[in-house]
Order: sequence, then structure tokens, then C-alpha cells
Amino acid sequence: MPYRAPVRDLAFSLTAVAGVEQLEATGAFPDFDLDLMNAVLEAGGSFSEEVLAPLNRPGDLAGAKYANGAVTAAPGFADAYQQFAAGGWTGLTASIEAGGQALPKALELAAYETVHSANMAFGLCPMLSLAAIEALEAHGTEEQKTVYLPKLVSGEWTGAMVLTEPGAGSDLGALTATATPNGDGTYALNGQKIFITWGDHDATPNIVHMVLARLPDAPPGPKGISLFLASKFEVKADGSLGDRNDFRPVGVEHKLGIHASPTCVMSYEGARATLVGQPNQGLSHMFVMMNAARLAVGVEGVGIAEMAYQHALAYALERRQGRSIWTGEANAPIFDHPDVRRMLSVMKAKIEAARAICFSTGVAADLAKHAASEDDRKAWKGREDLFTPIAKAWSTDVGCDVASMGVQIHGGMGFIEETGAAQYYRDARITPIYEGTNGIQAMDLVGRKLSMDGGEAAKAVIAEMKVTLTALGKLYAGKPVERFKTAIEAVEDATLWLLDAKADAARAADVLAAADAYLKLLGDVVGGWMLAKGALAAKTKLEAGEGDPAWLEGKLGLYEVYAANVLGHVSSRLAAVGQGGDLLKKMSREALGA
Amino acid sequence: MPYRAPVRDLAFSLTAVAGVEQLEATGAFPDFDLDLMNAVLEAGGSFSEEVLAPLNRPGDLAGAKYANGAVTAAPGFADAYQQFAAGGWTGLTASIEAGGQALPKALELAAYETVHSANMAFGLCPMLSLAAIEALEAHGTEEQKTVYLPKLVSGEWTGAMVLTEPGAGSDLGALTATATPNGDGTYALNGQKIFITWGDHDATPNIVHMVLARLPDAPPGPKGISLFLASKFEVKADGSLGDRNDFRPVGVEHKLGIHASPTCVMSYEGARATLVGQPNQGLSHMFVMMNAARLAVGVEGVGIAEMAYQHALAYALERRQGRSIWTGEANAPIFDHPDVRRMLSVMKAKIEAARAICFSTGVAADLAKHAASEDDRKAWKGREDLFTPIAKAWSTDVGCDVASMGVQIHGGMGFIEETGAAQYYRDARITPIYEGTNGIQAMDLVGRKLSMDGGEAAKAVIAEMKVTLTALGKLYAGKPVERFKTAIEAVEDATLWLLDAKADAARAADVLAAADAYLKLLGDVVGGWMLAKGALAAKTKLEAGEGDPAWLEGKLGLYEVYAANVLGHVSSRLAAVGQGGDLLKKMSREALGA
Repeated sequence: MPYRAPVRDLAFSLTAVAGVEQLEATGAFPDFDLDLMNAVLEAGGSFSEEVLAPLNRPGDLAGAKYANGAVTAAPGFADAYQQFAAGGWTGLTASIEAGGQALPKALELAAYETVHSANMAFGLCPMLSLAAIEALEAHGTEEQKTVYLPKLVSGEWTGAMVLTEPGAGSDLGALTATATPNGDGTYALNGQKIFITWGDHDATPNIVHMVLARLPDAPPGPKGISLFLASKFEVKADGSLGDRNDFRPVGVEHKLGIHASPTCVMSYEGARATLVGQPNQGLSHMFVMMNAARLAVGVEGVGIAEMAYQHALAYALERRQGRSIWTGEANAPIFDHPDVRRMLSVMKAKIEAARAICFSTGVAADLAKHAASEDDRKAWKGREDLFTPIAKAWSTDVGCDVASMGVQIHGGMGFIEETGAAQYYRDARITPIYEGTNGIQAMDLVGRKLSMDGGEAAKAVIAEMKVTLTALGKLYAGKPVERFKTAIEAVEDATLWLLDAKADAARAADVLAAADAYLKLLGDVVGGWMLAKGALAAKTKLEAGEGDPAWLEGKLGLYEVYAANVLGHVSSRLAAVGQGGDLLKKMSREALGA
Repeated sequence: MPYRAPVRDLAFSLTAVAGVEQLEATGAFPDFDLDLMNAVLEAGGSFSEEVLAPLNRPGDLAGAKYANGAVTAAPGFADAYQQFAAGGWTGLTASIEAGGQALPKALELAAYETVHSANMAFGLCPMLSLAAIEALEAHGTEEQKTVYLPKLVSGEWTGAMVLTEPGAGSDLGALTATATPNGDGTYALNGQKIFITWGDHDATPNIVHMVLARLPDAPPGPKGISLFLASKFEVKADGSLGDRNDFRPVGVEHKLGIHASPTCVMSYEGARATLVGQPNQGLSHMFVMMNAARLAVGVEGVGIAEMAYQHALAYALERRQGRSIWTGEANAPIFDHPDVRRMLSVMKAKIEAARAICFSTGVAADLAKHAASEDDRKAWKGREDLFTPIAKAWSTDVGCDVASMGVQIHGGMGFIEETGAAQYYRDARITPIYEGTNGIQAMDLVGRKLSMDGGEAAKAVIAEMKVTLTALGKLYAGKPVERFKTAIEAVEDATLWLLDAKADAARAADVLAAADAYLKLLGDVVGGWMLAKGALAAKTKLEAGEGDPAWLEGKLGLYEVYAANVLGHVSSRLAAVGQGGDLLKKMSREALGA
């Protein structure tokens, strides 16, 4: 199944919906304009199509291999990674000084969407490097930056994030790995870590591990965790590689999906490391990067959904069964069965909604750093913070949902591994889990993000949605408009309910019982907002005679499909928002049959 | 992960919700009473726990194997099948004359739920035999019945259903396999068939294939298809096996799940066969059995969901992370996090709703045959017909949904194959596809079942739900009651809308565009009805001081959880019911990016 990068849709989402053109005025991205954007998307898309997509199914079959204390990437992956790095794709957003291109985060997300579509297991490798780069840029010493950043930005080396332990997953505060001073300013790391993505491989000569561990006498819990850098090989003064450091993989996991992404169990046995940032501030240093990593996972959800969609669409056009109710054609493509068309339309609508949420979050992140005034930067930071858990959780749910519909459209063939649809279904399933489960995202949303600044960020979104609602009356009459209105009111009701509940410490369990439903409500409605903005922009282009009319009419249709098939969910979300903690507490072990 | 057959819940669903005791009065099941029911459930549950569950994960790993024109069952499966047959589990519902026990279908479904929970790949083998038994009982000649039925009922041989071809899946009318008269009353079958579940194996000495094929000069399309019986080995006059017949497997599929269930590609090369039923009536003969097969797949959905639930519940009680908001305990079981408790509660509520829908459909099927008056039999047949697509589609969606939540509760461990949660997620995914995709079920519901007899069956359900609604006011105040009321109204609105639309031939596409949403609406609301009936029965038992109070209180809680988390969906289903065919038609190839 060939992949075609949806460059036209990516550019539309960035410009007509996410407003990426606002970034030009900041002056922070000197090389960035819409021409460059299109060139990057075209080039990135071609690379994904031609180099990465053909390795996806073979990578799933072969997997990454562990033997004798070392991991070998799936066949072709090391070479593809070299080409990827040579193309400059690991340095899109890094600073010019570090060898990067200082492009917007939002553009990087769009380029990486094509990588994840073509080969999500591959995409995880540079994705984790980007997180390591961000950690070093924010908290590294000058020496760490000088030695490691250029190699990571050029892609000559990769980075890995080393957090989880068997007893410390969602609760990182429970971790037990130790860092003991060696007396020369370095530390000796000891402990075992699990779920370390691309923690070892043979695609680059060196790997830089960013490791969370405890200093001696550190306070217990989350406030006693520090961040360290450990290089797989010693880096000598001349930049060449010296001795092997004392950490190694002791196995890779046998997983449901992303077989070509090695998920390593790592053992640190006196590994030499240097401190990154301040002692005991490791978790807060990591939190700075967490928004970016979570947003990147949201884009994975979009990417895998797009691939599953393309595959299903191609099959629906080719596979013939039964008579078309529309054309009367016998043995018609199943594309002409209304229920198949419904699935494809809902898939595409959800993909475009999730994509625009992620890209909008990216634009907000860029403006949070680079908008002209401090007030603007603060407002964009609020938007970024509010949208990040939605981008992560809602988009990855869309990834699983769309991949499942992709299997369904294939009928019995969807269950056969050779068809390929099943791989997306398997690969997608990790995305609601890692980088904080979607339940953790929902707790983050209602626990922290929603109430920042008195709920200002959520209120701003509601106000902007109302502006779009007014404009929407020019495009549609009746239900498509009413449904958005009802949906916005539901968000308002739920937001006020939650802000109220949060003000009462005795209702903490009510807030947590509402978390999942509130995140899904906000995601459903903000997704609809994104499609509504797209429909409005498409209408403007149609009236101006710009662009392919059938494609632009499609944007208007996608909003309508979404309004009928998704926006209606809001009332159910409201019901679950208000279910209360007592009801769930009542569901005891005995009630649940344990 | 050990499996525990939920015997108490199964019996509660059969009696307190599905009304299985009505079957005693029919006289058609002389041995059946509640004591026997409990004995069958206990014995079946123990067999599933002790023999079948331990083979589930090894069967997934080893799979069924094809080599040199023959299939070998996964290790241990052949022996387990012998024990299963020896226990009488293949003859629960067959007639006494054929060696069966003439027990109700509803009880068989409950016993088989435990089989599918413990080992769905195994369960498919007897499930397909039951379909062959039913086909022979309904349409076989006396000779076919004499020769084959006792061996199938005793489980000495198995049966296989041989329908699908590469070009004929959802549209069986397109099939091309041929049957040529041999001149001696037998026929020679030729053609290739795919997706033949347990089409070949080494667990029994003979396999009876029920094959759809075309006679010479048969009309084209669905009206030219006949049903044949082909035995893997010739059955000699003394009942012993003779020559091998000319059909054989040419491969097994490599699938996403149910690895231990061989999905065969079968080649018929002049295979000797006899006609079953009337020439060119093969499809209508098959349709008679289709309700039963579809209902059986619904029960697979319930079974796999129950297993996924038990696994997740056990993990949630054992895995410790973070502090409990309810007890203040540090490093508490994740069971004590409201969002985990929400998932478990919703899982159990959906399972019990789906289980009761399936068992109620089984009781309706039994009463459709055996109720005292013709009017009653007709009314129960209407209920069976209406509920069958819901039992199949809604319950299998629940299977996938619950299996996915089971993975999620495990966090990162859920994605690791050794944990086991991923297998249920993979296995469950076939159930919305086979025996008619869930889209086909929805078309069957709105196209045939809903409008039978002027919509009488749906109207009867609505009337009965209103009776329950009135009673529900004694248990709950406010929202739990309001939500059921709103839900019933939504079903009424949607039903009238659809009956109207169906009366207008020009709106055929509107009906098809509504199909999926209508099926889901009816499933959501009927599921709520089932839980409401369970809550009412639990309350009665509580007041009478019968049974475990915490467990019975749980039934009241499950309805409330379901009302908050599922019943609210009905408004979104209504929106999608009315979306109309024109909207979907507008989503052209160009609009969808093809």
C-alpha cells in the first residue's frame, strides 16, 4: 500500500485553521514563509513516501532484535535514519547555533506527521532525540551543549529519554535509580529502567541518554529526582568516541505493535553521567519538555490515522460487492455503500479535526515563546497548556478509532496481517498509553490546565468559538449551526461546573470522576471548531475562485458530517462529567465482582 | 491469568433479566429447571476454567499449523476437544433423537460464553458444528440426518460452514463454486473457498462441510445457490470411514488474532457431495440458521469482554501507583483512582448489558419455537429477529471496546504481549467482521427487521421499556430515571423517522445512512433497559434478604454508571440517524482526497 503525503491538507490545516502565518511577524523564524513551508512539506512528504513507507511492513515483520547485550534495528532502518539525518530532518526547530534551522514547531509537527504515517516505529527514534535536544537546550551546561547538542541536531547521534522503572510508571515520584558522586563532578548511575524507546540500536555510533535518578540523601518522592546525561560512549576532547559506558540493554519487549521500535530494558551499572540542570529538579525540568513530547504523540495519532484512512479509502474504491444505491451499478465499489461512505467521511473529519488541534497547539507553543508582547506570550502559553492534553489524548483516541474503522472497511481482509490494516490497529494502540496515559492527560487537564489563571484559557477558547459560530451562520442553516451552538454551551456548562467543583476540596473525587468526559467533550467541540474554521476558509477560497472546488467543497461537507456524527455526543459527555466521585466509589470490589 | 466463570452473574442474567424460567412452562424442555441450569453453568464454567483457559495463551503463540495439505490444531486443542465432546457440550440443544439434551438455546449461550471467555479460538470449532447441526436438522434428508447428525451432536466429528469466496464476501450472491451432478444422485463440487473456520484440523477423524455452490443452469445471483454436504471421508454403510474426499486446505491465514482457530483456504476438486434441502434455495436455507450464528458471535463479544474485564480488574487491584483520593493510602492500588474505577465500572456495565441482550435473544428464540400459542410464537419470533442484529453488532462492539479499556488499564504493560491483555484486543477484533459485518447487521435491522409487521416488534419493545421506566422511579430519583426516559423517547423518534423514511422509496439512501446510528441507539437503550431490569430484580432480592447484598447493590450501581456514561449518547445517535444520504453522497472521491 503506497502512502501519499497529504501535503495540500497539511498546508490547509497549518494556514487556514491553525494560523501559522502569524509566526512570520514574530521575526523569530527568519527563514520561514509559506513558500518555505510548502517546500518543507513537499520534501518531507516525499522522503516519507519513498524511503520510510516501504520499510513499514518489513519492519513490522522483522522487528528490532536483541542479542548479546545489543540491539539491531530492523533491516533498512539504520540506512534510512542516515538519510533522514542527512536531509536535515532532525534539526528543523533547533537553534542556528546548534546547527538547526530555527523553523517553527508547528511546521516540524506537520513534517513529522508524514513520518509517523509512513512508519511510526521509525518516527519514534527522531522524536525522542528531539525531546533530548529540548532538554539540553533548556537545562544543559555550556559544556553539555557544546559536546552533545550539535551531534543530536545533526542526527549523527540519537537521544533517549530514560524515566520509567518497573515500580514507577505513571508515578515517577516512586523511582529508585541512584546517582552517586564520583568525586570529579560526574556521577555513577545504578538501576534498571524499562520501556526505553530506541534505548539501544545500531543506527548511529553513539546514543545520549537523559536519565532520571536520585542523588544520595535526596528527599523521598518527586522532589528528590534529578536529571542526568549518560553517553553510550565516552566523548573525548577532540570529539571522537572513547570507552563504552557502563549501561546496556538487557532485552527488548515483545509488543502488540511498533515492532521495529526497540523498547528496551536498560541496566545502569555505575554508568558515568553528568548532572543536567539543578539537583532534585529533574521532574520539573522534564515537565518543561513534556508538553512537546505529548504534542508529538498526538501527531503520531494523526499520522497513523491518516495512513489507515488512505489504505481503507483505496480498498473501498477497488473492492466491489453489491449494487450501488446511488448509481444503480451492479458489483459497485463498496465506496458507494452509504455505511462505508459514512465511515470514510467520519474518519477524514476526525483526522482533520485532530490534525488542526495538534497544529494549533504547535502554533500556540511557537507564539508562547515568540509573540511580541508578554501578555500575548502568556495568553498563547495558556492556549498551549490547555490544548496539549487534548492534542495528546483526543488525537490518539482518534488514531485508534480510525485504525479500527480502517480494519472494518476491509471486512475479513482487515483481519489478515498481509493486508496491512491490522498493523495500524496494533501500532496505534500504544499512543493512548505512553507519554502519560490518556487518563493522566485528563487529570492534568482538569487538575492543572483548566484552572490556571482562573480558567482564563478555557474562557478564551469559548469566546473565540462563539465568534466562529456567528460566522458559521453564513455557511449553513439549521442543524449544523445549532449543533455547534449546543456544543459550545455544553463546554461552558461543564467548565463552570468543574471550576466550581475544584473550588471545593471535598469534591476532589468529583473532579477526577469528570476528567475523562471533560477532556473528550472539549476535544469533540474544539475539533468541531477546527472543522468549522476550515469550512469558513474553504468558502472564502471558493468565492475567490482559488483552489480545487471539489476538495474545498469537501471541507464544508466534513464539518457537516462531523456535526451529525460527533458533535451530538456532547450531551453524553455532560452526563458523565457530572457523575460524581461517590457513584464510582460505590462500585466496590464486591460490586465489581472481585 | 486465571479465568473464573461468572456463574452467579450468568444465572442472574438468565433469570432476573432474560426470563429464562418462562421456558419451563412450555414443556419443550423436559429436563430443564433452575437447578439444572445452575448445574450446567457450574460444570461448563469449570471445564472452561480448568481445561480451556490454560490453552489460550499457548494457542495464541503456537497457532494452528498448515503443512502438506493438512492442518494441525494448536498443541493441546485436539485433546481438549475430545474432553469437551465427551462432556456432552456439543449436544446441549440438539434433539434427544439425535443424541442431544434438548436444552434451551439460552442456556447453551450462557455455557458457551464461558468457553469463549476462556479460549475464543477453541470455541469457534464447536460453534461452527452447532451451525452445521442446525442446518441438517432443518433441511437434511433422512439419510443425511441418520448418517451425520449423531456424530456431529456427539462431537465425534465437527462441522464447517463453507460460504465465502474471494469475490463473494458480504455479497454471497456473487459466488461461483459449482456442483455438477454425478448421475448417481451425488454432485461434484469445484471451486475455491476462503475464510473457512476450522475447515481442516486433526482434532476429529472426520469433518462435515456444508458448502454453498451453483448447480448447472442455475439462475445468476442469490437465487441460483444451493447447499451441499461434503464429508472429508466417505462414510461407509457400517458407519466406518472410507476414502478421502476431493477437497483439502491449501493454506491457513496469518491473522491479527484467534491464532489457534485455523482459517482455511479450501480447494474443492470434484469433491463428492449431496444436496441439502431444495435446489437453488441454499441462501434461504442458510438464512434460517443465520440468526443463531449471529447470536453466537454476539456471545463471543460478551465472552472476550468478560475475560478482558477480569484480567484488568485483577491488575487494578494488584498494581500500585500514587495516592488514593478516597482512602488517603499512599502507593494505593490503581483500583482506587477514580478514572480506573470509572473504566472498570463502565466495562462491567456494558458486559452485563450485552450479556442480557444476548440471553434475552436466546430466550426469544426458544419461545419463538415453543411458546404455547401461535400469537405468542409470532411475537417472540419478532423479538428474536429484531434483537439478533443488535445482539451481534452491539455486543461485539462492546467486546472490542472493553478489550481496549482492558489494555488501557494495564498502562504500558498492556502493550506487552506477555501480559495477555493484548491478545483479547486482537482476538475481539474479528467479531464485528464475521457472520455479516456490523454494517451488514445495521442494514439488516433497518432494511428488514425493523419494518416487519409494521414495526410491531420495535413498538412492543418500546412499550415494555416504558413499563420498566415506571418501575424505575421506585429505585432512583432524578437523572438516572430522566436519562432512561429521554433514551426511550429517542428510540421512539428514531423508529418513527425510519418507518417514515422506509415508506418512501426515494429515501432508501437516508435509511442506509441512518443504519449504524440506529442500531447503536437501540443497543444503547435496550442495554440500559436490561440493566434497569437487573437493578429492579436486585432491589427485590435485597428487600427479601436473598443473596449477597454488596453484589446486589452493585447491580443498582451498574445501571446508574451506565445511565451517566452510555445512555447520554442517545442524542448523538439521533443526530446521526437523521444525517441523510445526500450528505454522504456529497462526500465524493475528490472531497475525500482519493
